[in-house]
Amino acid sequence: MSSSFGSIFKISTWGESHGAGVGVVVDGCPAGVHLTREMIQAELDRRRPGQSDLTTPRKEADTVEILSGVQDATTLGTPIGLLVRNQDQRPSAYKEMETAYRPSHADFCYDAKYGLRAKSGGGRASARETIGRVAAGTVAKAVVQAICPELEILAWVESVHGISCAVQPHLVTRAAVESNPVRTADAAAAEQMAELIRRVRAQGDSVGGTIACTIRRCPAGLGDPVFDKLEATLAHAMMSLPACKGFELGSGFSAPSMLGSQHNDPYYMEGDRVRTRTNNSGGVQGGISNGEDINMRLAFKPTATIMLDQETVTSDHQPTQLRGKGRHDPCVLPRAVPIVEAMAYLVVCDHLLRQRCCRI
Amino acid sequence: MSSSFGSIFKISTWGESHGAGVGVVVDGCPAGVHLTREMIQAELDRRRPGQSDLTTPRKEADTVEILSGVQDATTLGTPIGLLVRNQDQRPSAYKEMETAYRPSHADFCYDAKYGLRAKSGGGRASARETIGRVAAGTVAKAVVQAICPELEILAWVESVHGISCAVQPHLVTRAAVESNPVRTADAAAAEQMAELIRRVRAQGDSVGGTIACTIRRCPAGLGDPVFDKLEATLAHAMMSLPACKGFELGSGFSAPSMLGSQHNDPYYMEGDRVRTRTNNSGGVQGGISNGEDINMRLAFKPTATIMLDQETVTSDHQPTQLRGKGRHDPCVLPRAVPIVEAMAYLVVCDHLLRQRCCRI
Amino acid sequence: MSSSFGSIFKISTWGESHGAGVGVVVDGCPAGVHLTREMIQAELDRRRPGQSDLTTPRKEADTVEILSGVQDATTLGTPIGLLVRNQDQRPSAYKEMETAYRPSHADFCYDAKYGLRAKSGGGRASARETIGRVAAGTVAKAVVQAICPELEILAWVESVHGISCAVQPHLVTRAAVESNPVRTADAAAAEQMAELIRRVRAQGDSVGGTIACTIRRCPAGLGDPVFDKLEATLAHAMMSLPACKGFELGSGFSAPSMLGSQHNDPYYMEGDRVRTRTNNSGGVQGGISNGEDINMRLAFKPTATIMLDQETVTSDHQPTQLRGKGRHDPCVLPRAVPIVEAMAYLVVCDHLLRQRCCRI
Amino acid sequence: MSSSFGSIFKISTWGESHGAGVGVVVDGCPAGVHLTREMIQAELDRRRPGQSDLTTPRKEADTVEILSGVQDATTLGTPIGLLVRNQDQRPSAYKEMETAYRPSHADFCYDAKYGLRAKSGGGRASARETIGRVAAGTVAKAVVQAICPELEILAWVESVHGISCAVQPHLVTRAAVESNPVRTADAAAAEQMAELIRRVRAQGDSVGGTIACTIRRCPAGLGDPVFDKLEATLAHAMMSLPACKGFELGSGFSAPSMLGSQHNDPYYMEGDRVRTRTNNSGGVQGGISNGEDINMRLAFKPTATIMLDQETVTSDHQPTQLRGKGRHDPCVLPRAVPIVEAMAYLVVCDHLLRQRCCRI
Repeated sequence: MSSSFGSIFKISTWGESHGAGVGVVVDGCPAGVHLTREMIQAELDRRRPGQSDLTTPRKEADTVEILSGVQDATTLGTPIGLLVRNQDQRPSAYKEMETAYRPSHADFCYDAKYGLRAKSGGGRASARETIGRVAAGTVAKAVVQAICPELEILAWVESVHGISCAVQPHLVTRAAVESNPVRTADAAAAEQMAELIRRVRAQGDSVGGTIACTIRRCPAGLGDPVFDKLEATLAHAMMSLPACKGFELGSGFSAPSMLGSQHNDPYYMEGDRVRTRTNNSGGVQGGISNGEDINMRLAFKPTATIMLDQETVTSDHQPTQLRGKGRHDPCVLPRAVPIVEAMAYLVVCDHLLRQRCCRI
Repeated sequence: MSSSFGSIFKISTWGESHGAGVGVVVDGCPAGVHLTREMIQAELDRRRPGQSDLTTPRKEADTVEILSGVQDATTLGTPIGLLVRNQDQRPSAYKEMETAYRPSHADFCYDAKYGLRAKSGGGRASARETIGRVAAGTVAKAVVQAICPELEILAWVESVHGISCAVQPHLVTRAAVESNPVRTADAAAAEQMAELIRRVRAQGDSVGGTIACTIRRCPAGLGDPVFDKLEATLAHAMMSLPACKGFELGSGFSAPSMLGSQHNDPYYMEGDRVRTRTNNSGGVQGGISNGEDINMRLAFKPTATIMLDQETVTSDHQPTQLRGKGRHDPCVLPRAVPIVEAMAYLVVCDHLLRQRCCRI
Repeated sequence: MSSSFGSIFKISTWGESHGAGVGVVVDGCPAGVHLTREMIQAELDRRRPGQSDLTTPRKEADTVEILSGVQDATTLGTPIGLLVRNQDQRPSAYKEMETAYRPSHADFCYDAKYGLRAKSGGGRASARETIGRVAAGTVAKAVVQAICPELEILAWVESVHGISCAVQPHLVTRAAVESNPVRTADAAAAEQMAELIRRVRAQGDSVGGTIACTIRRCPAGLGDPVFDKLEATLAHAMMSLPACKGFELGSGFSAPSMLGSQHNDPYYMEGDRVRTRTNNSGGVQGGISNGEDINMRLAFKPTATIMLDQETVTSDHQPTQLRGKGRHDPCVLPRAVPIVEAMAYLVVCDHLLRQRCCRI
Repeated sequence: MSSSFGSIFKISTWGESHGAGVGVVVDGCPAGVHLTREMIQAELDRRRPGQSDLTTPRKEADTVEILSGVQDATTLGTPIGLLVRNQDQRPSAYKEMETAYRPSHADFCYDAKYGLRAKSGGGRASARETIGRVAAGTVAKAVVQAICPELEILAWVESVHGISCAVQPHLVTRAAVESNPVRTADAAAAEQMAELIRRVRAQGDSVGGTIACTIRRCPAGLGDPVFDKLEATLAHAMMSLPACKGFELGSGFSAPSMLGSQHNDPYYMEGDRVRTRTNNSGGVQGGISNGEDINMRLAFKPTATIMLDQETVTSDHQPTQLRGKGRHDPCVLPRAVPIVEAMAYLVVCDHLLRQRCCRI
C-alpha cells in the first residue's frame, strides 16, 4: 500500500536504488492528452545527478522509456508505464552499510519493519525513488495544462542554512530559478548559497534549507472538505519526500503571531472576481482553493550522508564508527525543486479530476 | 471521497453543523476490543463547547450513541456507527451569512465548489465535524492500547500568540495538561495564556497558537516507505484539521539551521535496544518509526469568527460589512488538543494494523 | 474494509440485525441532486418485511431518517447519513442459536473469523443489512436519473423453483412486476409461484429461484477495461447479496453451446446509432457498455432458515438438532428485487461518475 | 482506476498488445517470501501462445524480468515490478481493424469511451493483458504457500461446447490436467475436445466452454461480510477475465431446483473439525469460508475472432464485411486455466492478509 498515491489520477512507483531500474505506473490518466518521451525526459534532467558542481558527481543519464498508454504522442486513457534503468551501480561502495546502520538513514527502520532490507544503497529509501514521482508528475502536468492552461506551479530554493532569497513569491519566475544551479530566485543569494554548499562539501558535511512552492491561477473550488483538504493532500505529498521535516500553508507558523483581525483575509470585488486583500490563508479556505495563489513552504534537513566519522551500531548491535563513502549531494535542495513541483502537480491533477464529480 | 480517512482502520464522518446530527462509521476495527460508550463520551467531553470560560458559551451535551458494532462492551469486528444529535441549533444567528461571505471562512469556497452550500453555520466546515474524528479516535485508541498497551499519545498547547509553555516535551504529563483549561503543560504559562484569551475575547478578537503532540513508546517499524510515510500520514491528518496552517516533525523548520553533522542522530545501544543519542529525526527515519518519541508541532491560526466589523462581499458580489454574531471560541487550541490526539491515534492505529501484513 | 462499496460514489453500511439500527453513509454524491426522504422510503417499503402474505410476517416499518447531506430536497455534495432504527427485536427467538450453528447460515463462519459474533440474529449477515443498500441505491438512482434521465433499471423474479416467467426481457414493465406480490412479469406465473411459496412454507421448507435484471438505454462507453469491467463490478455487487449463488451476463452459461459465428453480435447502423443485431454480449464488450440492454441473471438459493429439524453442532462442538424459530421468508426473491435494482444503480452511478474523468 | 486489483495485496497491470511490453506492479507483498524469476516464468509458459496445436501459432517467449522488490530470491516487502517485452508485433495484420469494428470485440466500446484507441490489436482488451495477471498471481501463490502451505488452487476445463469432463471435482489432480493440451481432467474427454477444437478451427470458427476451479484446504474464516464476501471478490476477479460470461459458487444456478431442506449443508464433527455433510454452499457461508472446498464454475464464450465473413460497420459508420486475419486461438479455455488460477490466488492472498487485521 505504501507505494501508491492519488485517488483518481493514481500513481504506483517501484524500484530499488541498486536493482534493475525504477519506474512508475500512472493509472487514471484521461485519454487525449498530449504527451511525449521528451517532455518527461526534460523534467528528469532537472532532477538528474551530476547536473552541476553542487550535486553528486554520479553520472546517470536516467533515460526514460514509455512502455504503454501513449500512442502518437497522445495518452490512450490506459495505464502509462514508465521505466528508467539503473546504470551507475556501485554496490561495493555500500559494503560497510550492510552491517552498520547509517545515522539518520532508514537502514535500521527497514530492518525493524521487514526483518531484512536491500543489501546495497537505500533500496526504496534512496532518492532514486523520486524518479518515478518526477516522471508521473510530468504526466500530471500535461493533464493539468490541458484542463487549466493558465495554471502554473513553481518551486524554488528559498533558503539554504540561513542564506535567504529575497524575492517576493509572486515575483519569482521560472527563468530566474533555472538561471542558477541552486534554483533560487535571486542571483546574489544564488552565489552565496553555492559558495556555502561548496564549502560545506569540502568539510565533508551537508546542509539543508527551505523550498517555497506556489500554485498560480488555480481555479476556486479545488479540494475536498474534511480529510482531503487541498492543504492536507499537499502536506501528505510533500512530507512524503525524503528529508522533508516541515510544511506550511500561507501564514503557517507565523499565524499565531497575528490576531484574528489581522489574519483574516477580507473579500473584495476585482471586476467580477471575488478576491481577498491579503492572502494569509495561502489560497485555501476550509480545504478548498479560493482562487488566490496557493503558497507553501517546506523545510528540508541536511543530507544524512556525510564524509565524517559518526557513532553508530551494527545490525548485530555492536558499537562502531561509520564514514560516508558514496557520492552524495551535500545539499538536496537544488535537485528537490522539480520533485516538489511534480508532487504539487500530482495533487492538483487529482483534485481537478475529482472536481468533475462534485456537482451534477 | 472527501470524508473518509485510513486504509485498513477506515473512518467515514458525516454531518452538518445545523442538521440532524453528526457522526462517524468506523470500518475495519478488529473484533475483541474493549469499548464502551463512556470511553467515547469522555473524549467528547474534552472537546465539548462550554467546558470552561475560555471556550464558546454554547451548551451542547454532545451525547454519543453507539449504533452498531459493539456488544457487551466488546467490538464485533463489524462497522461501528456513532451518532451525536445536534441540539443547540440557532440558524437565526447565521441569517446574515447566507448572503455575506465570512472572511477566512469556507463560505465562498463551498459556493465555488458545489454551486450551493448548507444554509446556516459552516455545514461540513464547522468545527462540529470534528466530533466524528474524536469519537472515532477513541475507538482507535482502544485498539492501539489493546495491541501496544505501553504506547501513549499526548498533545498540549505549546504556545498562544507568543506566550509559550516552557516544559520539555518528554516531561509533559496528561495530569499537568488537564489541570488547566488552556491545556498547556505549565501552570504559570496557563494563567498568562488564559488571561490573554479573555482579554482578546473582550476586544471581540481572536488568537492562535501552536500545539505539540508526542507519541511515546511507539514500536520501531511503523509507517510505510515512500508515499505513506508515518510523517506524511500524520501531516495529512493534522493539516486536515480546521485552522491548522503548519506541521513539523522533529527538528522541523529549524533543521536548516543545523549542519548534517549536527542534525544526524547517532545510534548507540541501550541494553539490547538500538537508540539514538539525539532525536532531530522526531522518531521517524525514512518514513518508519525508530522507537524514539515521535514529536510533532502544529500551527493554528486565530479563529476566523471575530466580533468586529470586516470588509467582505455578498454571494451576489456586492461589497458589505460583516460582524460575527454566533457564539465562538476566541482561541480554538484548548478544545483542539483532544482532536489532535484523536487524529494521531487514527494514524497510529491504521499503521499498527498495516504492520501485520508487512512480513510473512 | 468489508462494508464499503464503490470508488467515487462510495457507500459504507453499518448495523446489526438486533442492535440500535442499521444505516449507511453515502460519500461522493454530487451536489444539486433532487432527493427526499419519501423517495428513499418508497424503495425501503418495497423490501420491507410483512408487505404480503408471501414474506415474513415480521412487522417493521423501517422508517428512514436523513441525518445529513440534504437540504431543501437537494444534495449538498457532502456525505449523506441515513438511519433506520431497529424495532421488532426478539432476541429470545434466537436463544438456541447462540450455541447451535444454523446450517447454511454464517454463524460458524463468523466464529471462525472473529472469535465471537453478535449474540442474536445474524448480526451483519442478517438480511436487514440490505436496508442500507436499498437506501443508498435510491440516492444512486437519483444521481443516475439526473445525469441520464432515460436510463432505466428493472429487475424481476424470472423463476421460482422451476416455475418460470415467460415474458421476454425487453417487454417486461415495472407496472407488471409491481402488480403481483411475487414481483414476476407474468400474471399466470405469478399465481403459480405464489401458490408454490405458500405450499412450501406450510411444509416448513423454503425455495429459491432466479432474478433477471436489465439496464435499458445505458450510454455506450461505461465501465473500465481490465479489472473494473462493467460486468465484473456488477458481478461483485450481485454476488455480495445474501443467498446469491450465480451471476450471468448476456448469454452466460449458454454461451458454450454456441459457435463463435453464432455468438458474435454483428454491428449495423440504425440511423446514426451503431447497434448489434443480436445481444449475446449482454450489452457489454471488453468490459464497456455498447448501448444495448445490459442483461443479467442471478441465482438465489432457498432460504436457509427452515422450520424442520436439522442436524448440526453446537459452538462447543456437540452434535445437536436445530429447528428454525424466527419469522422468516420462505422465499427471498420477491423482496430481493428492489435490492438487486439498488445494487445495479450503485454500480451504474459509480461508473457514470468515473466516466467524467476518462477523457480530457 | 481500471487497472488495479486487491486491497492489501494490490496489483496494477499495464501494457497494450502492440506497444513496448506488458507488465504489472505488485504492491503490498510481504517481505520474506521465496520468489524467483523461474517460478513466474513457469506459470507464464502455461498461458503462452504456441504451446500446443490447439492454440494460436503465434510464437512469443513471453520472458519475464523482475525489475524490483526481490533480492536473493526473497521478497523485500517493496513493490515488485515485472516486465514482459512484446516481440511478435504484426500491426499490419490489424490494418483493416483500424476502421472496421470487429464484432463482439471491444473496438467500438473503446472508441465510445475514450474517443480514440490503440491503433492495432486489442490494446488493453487484448488477451496479452492477462500476462500481468498470471505473473502477479504467481507472486500471490508464493505468499499463499508461505502462509498456508496446504492450500491448493486447481482449475481445469470442465466442458468444451457440450463435451464434458466426467471427473468429480475433488478427484481432479494437477497431473491429470497438465497431461493433455486441453487441460481437462479426463483423458477420453481431452481427446474428444481436442478433436472438436481442431475441426472448428478448420472451419474458421471458434468454441467456448466452462472452467471449474476449486480451492482446497482453505482455512475457515476467510472473506469479509457484506460487500467483499469471498464469492463476491472471486466473481469480480473471474468476470473481469476476457470472454467470461458467467460465475457460479457451489450449487450455483442449480440451487433453485432444490428445497431448503435439500440445499442446507448439515454440520457434523469430524474429529475436532466442524464439517458439512454436503457442500452446496461451495465452501462459503455468509461470504466467509467454512473450511470445505471452494468450488466455482465459469462460462467462457467462443473466441470472438473467427476466420469467416461477418457483418459490421466502420468507425465512420459505413456498413462493411470483416473476416479475422490475425493468428488466434479457436478456443481460449486451455490457456485460460492458469489465468483462472492466478485470479483465485490473487483473491485468496488478499483475504489471507486482510485476515490478519480482523481480530485483536
